[in-house]
Amino acid sequence: MAELTPHELIARHRPTLDQALEAIRTRAYWSPHPEHPKAYGENGSLSLPEGKAAFDAVLGTRLDLGQPGTDDWVGGEVSPYGVELGVTYPHADVETLLPAMKAGRRAWRDAGAETRAVVCLEILKRISDRTMEFAHAVMHTSGQAFMMAFQAGGPHAQDRGLEAVAYAYVEQVRTPDTAEWVKPQGKRDPLTMTKQFTPVPRGIALLIGCNTFPTWNGYPGMFASLATGNAVLVKPHPRAVLPLALTVQVAREVLAEAGFDPNLVALAAERPGEGIAKTLATRPEIRIIDYTGSTAFGDWLETNARQAQVYTEKAGVNTVLVESTDNYKGMLANLAFSLSLYSGQMCTTPQNLLIPRDGIRTDEGPRSYDEVVADLARAIDGLLGDDTRANALLGAIVNPDVKARLEAAAGLGEVALASREISNPEFPRAVVRTPVIVKLDGAKPDDEAAYMSECFGPVSFAVAVDSASDAVELLRRTVREKGAMTVGAYTTDPEVEDAVREVCLEEAAQLSFNLTGGVYVNQTAAFSDFHGSGGNPAANAALTDGAFVASRFRVVEVREDA
Amino acid sequence: MAELTPHELIARHRPTLDQALEAIRTRAYWSPHPEHPKAYGENGSLSLPEGKAAFDAVLGTRLDLGQPGTDDWVGGEVSPYGVELGVTYPHADVETLLPAMKAGRRAWRDAGAETRAVVCLEILKRISDRTMEFAHAVMHTSGQAFMMAFQAGGPHAQDRGLEAVAYAYVEQVRTPDTAEWVKPQGKRDPLTMTKQFTPVPRGIALLIGCNTFPTWNGYPGMFASLATGNAVLVKPHPRAVLPLALTVQVAREVLAEAGFDPNLVALAAERPGEGIAKTLATRPEIRIIDYTGSTAFGDWLETNARQAQVYTEKAGVNTVLVESTDNYKGMLANLAFSLSLYSGQMCTTPQNLLIPRDGIRTDEGPRSYDEVVADLARAIDGLLGDDTRANALLGAIVNPDVKARLEAAAGLGEVALASREISNPEFPRAVVRTPVIVKLDGAKPDDEAAYMSECFGPVSFAVAVDSASDAVELLRRTVREKGAMTVGAYTTDPEVEDAVREVCLEEAAQLSFNLTGGVYVNQTAAFSDFHGSGGNPAANAALTDGAFVASRFRVVEVREDA
Repeated sequence: MAELTPHELIARHRPTLDQALEAIRTRAYWSPHPEHPKAYGENGSLSLPEGKAAFDAVLGTRLDLGQPGTDDWVGGEVSPYGVELGVTYPHADVETLLPAMKAGRRAWRDAGAETRAVVCLEILKRISDRTMEFAHAVMHTSGQAFMMAFQAGGPHAQDRGLEAVAYAYVEQVRTPDTAEWVKPQGKRDPLTMTKQFTPVPRGIALLIGCNTFPTWNGYPGMFASLATGNAVLVKPHPRAVLPLALTVQVAREVLAEAGFDPNLVALAAERPGEGIAKTLATRPEIRIIDYTGSTAFGDWLETNARQAQVYTEKAGVNTVLVESTDNYKGMLANLAFSLSLYSGQMCTTPQNLLIPRDGIRTDEGPRSYDEVVADLARAIDGLLGDDTRANALLGAIVNPDVKARLEAAAGLGEVALASREISNPEFPRAVVRTPVIVKLDGAKPDDEAAYMSECFGPVSFAVAVDSASDAVELLRRTVREKGAMTVGAYTTDPEVEDAVREVCLEEAAQLSFNLTGGVYVNQTAAFSDFHGSGGNPAANAALTDGAFVASRFRVVEVREDA
Repeated sequence: MAELTPHELIARHRPTLDQALEAIRTRAYWSPHPEHPKAYGENGSLSLPEGKAAFDAVLGTRLDLGQPGTDDWVGGEVSPYGVELGVTYPHADVETLLPAMKAGRRAWRDAGAETRAVVCLEILKRISDRTMEFAHAVMHTSGQAFMMAFQAGGPHAQDRGLEAVAYAYVEQVRTPDTAEWVKPQGKRDPLTMTKQFTPVPRGIALLIGCNTFPTWNGYPGMFASLATGNAVLVKPHPRAVLPLALTVQVAREVLAEAGFDPNLVALAAERPGEGIAKTLATRPEIRIIDYTGSTAFGDWLETNARQAQVYTEKAGVNTVLVESTDNYKGMLANLAFSLSLYSGQMCTTPQNLLIPRDGIRTDEGPRSYDEVVADLARAIDGLLGDDTRANALLGAIVNPDVKARLEAAAGLGEVALASREISNPEFPRAVVRTPVIVKLDGAKPDDEAAYMSECFGPVSFAVAVDSASDAVELLRRTVREKGAMTVGAYTTDPEVEDAVREVCLEEAAQLSFNLTGGVYVNQTAAFSDFHGSGGNPAANAALTDGAFVASRFRVVEVREDA
C-alpha cells in the first residue's frame, strides 16, 4: 500500500504545476522556491545551520541507496575548498542494475502524465526542504561560493527541474487519452472508432552530470525524462557526485512511498579513471542522454550514441560587443560582476569583449579602447578589493586545469588586469583567483587563435576591432564556428542594435542588450529565459522548450471499431 | 506590392487553421478537403475532366518553375501504367540555387508564425483546387488506381499537410512574442526586463520524396519546415517528380503573390543515376531532412547527415495476429481489402499473418490454420474476381523490383493463394497482379529468414505459430528488430488483447484491434491517427506530433533592462 496516493499528491502539487504551466506560457517572473536563506528553516525545511549539520553528518559515510547490483563502494571527492568529503557511493554492476531499472516501467507508464508530474513535484519539494544541505554539497563539489551554491544549486536548479516537468506534462496531454472518431459516409452509417492514446517512454535515460553545476544542469534532463515515463540513470561527474547522489536518494524515497519501483532512478558512480560514461552511453537500453560538458565528449556522444536521443550542452565562445553606452558606470559594474562571478567558470560567462580600437561613445564622453579596458579593470579591482567580498563572489577554482589556463593566459597578450591570488581564511587550501583581462588585436592571426578558442575560467580577452560592423562580423563568425551560450551588446546606435540582433537571430544565439543593473548576461531565469538556443554549436538543446521534451516519449494509439 | 496581404490571407484561412487546431486537440474526425470526386468542379476547383485535361496538357512539356541556377532540363518519368510523361524539369546548379534560397529567409522569418501558416494554407487551397490534376499525376507516377490516387494523393495528403501546419503553428506560439519580467527585490526596486522571443528557422530543409506516395508522405515534412520559417528544397523520387513539381509550382506562385521570395521553395530534379540526394543531404546549408523510403538509405542519412535534423520513415515488417474473432466474415473481408489495396505497396500493409497452428475460434465455430488461410485466399479471390474491380483496387505494380519480389515469393513456401495477372484494358502495358499468400512455419529457421525480412509488395506470409503467446512474442521480436508501421490483432480473449496491447506499448507500435468494417489497418486519418510512432526501427518520426515540428526551429530571446 502506497503511503502517498496519486490523489493526495495531486491535491498537494497540482496548484504549483498549474502556476508553472502559466509561467512558461507568459514567461513572466515566477518561482515557488525562495532564494533568501531566511526563508528556510520553516514548514519542514532545513535552516542554514541544520543544512550544514546534515552535510557534515554525511561526510565520511557510505551513502547506501539500496540499489540492486551494487558490487563495490567508490568515492574520493575533494572539495575545491580543500575538504575531503570521504563519502562512498554504490558502484553498480550494470548487467544487474539496468534490467532492474526496467522492472517498474509499466506501472510508471500506466500512472499517466499527471501522476508522474506530481511525483516529480514531490521529489522537488523534498529537495527544496533540504536546500541548505544541497547548498553545502554543491559548494564543496563545484567550488561555488556559498550564496551562489545555495541559490544556483538550490532554488534555481529546482526551478529548472520544475520547468522541465511542466513542459513534459503539457507535451503529453496535448493528445487526449481517448477519442471517438465518427466519419460520415453519406447515406450509409458513419464509420466510428474508439481510439486510445498513451504516452510511452523511450526506455532508460542517462544523465551525465557536470562538475560546475551538478544540480542546475542536471535537473532539466533528469526531470524531463522521469516525467515522460522513463527510468533515469544518473552518472555524476566524479568530482561532483554528492549533490546528484542526494537527489537520487530523495527520488528513490519518494517513488517508493508513492508505490512505484525506486529503481526507476539510480546512481552510477564510478571508480577513478573508469570512464563509464562511454560504456553506458552506447548500451542499447539507454535511449536518452543528457550531457553537459566538453565539446569533445559531447561530439563523441552525438556521433556514437546513435541508439539514443542525445541532448548536449557543450562549450562556446561568448561575446560581449561594446560599441557605445548611455550608462558607462552601470556597464562597467555589470560587466565586472559578470566576469567575476564564480571566477568566470560558467558556460555563460563572457570571454571576448569586442571594443572598437578608436574607442566608444559614452554618457561621460568618448573613451578610447585603452581607457575602456583600464576602466573595466578598475571596476573589477574595486568589486573584488575586499577579500571577504571577493571570496563570496569568486568561489574557488574548480580544478587544476582551470588554474593552468588562467596562468597561461597572461602569456597570450598584454595583460590589462592581472589575476590576483586571494586567501580564504575559512578554507586555506582553496585556490581563489581574480580574473585576468588580456588585450588582443582582432586583426592579428596569432591573437585570433586565442580569442577563437574557448578558455574556460576567469579569462577575458579585450579584442580591439576596426569598427562596429567589424565587431558584428566577428560576432557572427564566432557564434557560427564556435557556438555561444550568451551574447551581450552595449550600444545606443539603432543600426548597430539591429545588426547585432540580426546576427543573433540568424545564428540562433541568446542576446542581452545594455545590461547595467542587477541582471547579468550569464544568468537566466527559469520559466522566462531560455538557456542556450540549441541552434548553434554550443548546445543542441535549449533549457527548456518543447523540443527538449517532445522526443523523450512516443504516443501509441490503440484503435478499434466502436 | 504584394497581391495577397497577410490581413487578407488571415481573414481567408484563420477559421480553417482554428478548426485544424481543435481537431489535433480532440482527434475527432475532421477534414476540409472533400474525398468525393463530385465535390470538385465548383468554387474554382477543377472538375474530373478539367483535371484530366490539365494533366494531359502538361505531358510532353518543359515545366519551367523560374528557378535560379537552372543549368539543364531533365525528365524521363514513365507511368507504371505505361505512359511516358515526357515532362522535363529544371536541373539545378546547387551552388547558385542554395544561396538564392537563403535570400528570402529574413522576410519569411519576420512574417511570423501566423502569416506563415496562412500562406501555407493558401498553397494547400490552390493544390486542393487542382486535386483532379494531382490525382492523375499521382496515379501515373505511383501506379495507384485512380480513386486512390485522387483520395490519398489529394485530400488525404492535403489533410496531412494542413495537420503539419497546425502543429508547427501551435509549437511556435506557445512562447509569447514578448514578456515583461518583474522580479521583486524586497525593499529595493524590482528587477524589470523586456524580453522578445522569435522563432528562427534552422536553414534550408530538404524533402526527399518517395515513389509510392509523393504527396501524402511529402507534404508533412514540407509544410512543417515551411511553416516554421525554413526554405524547402524538394528532391522528388526520379519516378515520381510531377506531383511534387506541381506542388513546388503552386508554392512559388503563392509565395510571390504574398510578397515573399518564391525561391523559399525549389525543386531539385536529377539526371538518371545522378543520386543527388546524398550530395544535397550533407551540404552544410541543409539543416532539416525529411525522407521516406528504404531502410538502407534512411540509415545512411541518419548516420551521415549529422548537420541536419533527420526525419525518416523507413521499412518495417507489419504483423496481424489472428487469434479469434466474433466476426469471421468481417475479418476476412477486412484483411482481404487491406492486402489487396494498391497491390500491398503501402508501408502500412500487413505482411505477416500470425495464426495458431491449432486453429482459431470464430463466431462460425473453430477454424483450423489451413481453413483460415484458405478462407482468406477465397475472400481475396472474391474481392478481386471482377477485373474492373480488381484494377480499381490493385492499381499497377510500381516498379520491376516489386514484380521480381512477388514472383520470387512463390518459392519461399507452400503457396496458399497464387498471384494472378490482371489485364487493364485502358492501359495494356500496366503490370497488374493480385496478392500472393505463402504459408510459413514460425518455428522453422529457413522460414524465419523470409518472414523476418520486409517483402514490399503484394506478398503476405501466413505464419503458423504454436500458440497465442508464441504469436505475441514473435510480434514483439518483429517490432523490436525490424520495426513496424502498423500492427493488427483479431482476438476476443481479454488476456490476449492485453498481451498484444502491452507489446505495442512497450515496442511503440500503432495497433488496430478487430477491424471488420470500413476502416483498414493500413489507413490512417490525419488529425486523428498517428502514422508510425517514431519509437521502433520503421521510422524515427510520427505523422504528426509535437516532436515532428519542435526541432525545425529554435527560439531566440533578446532581452534588455526595462
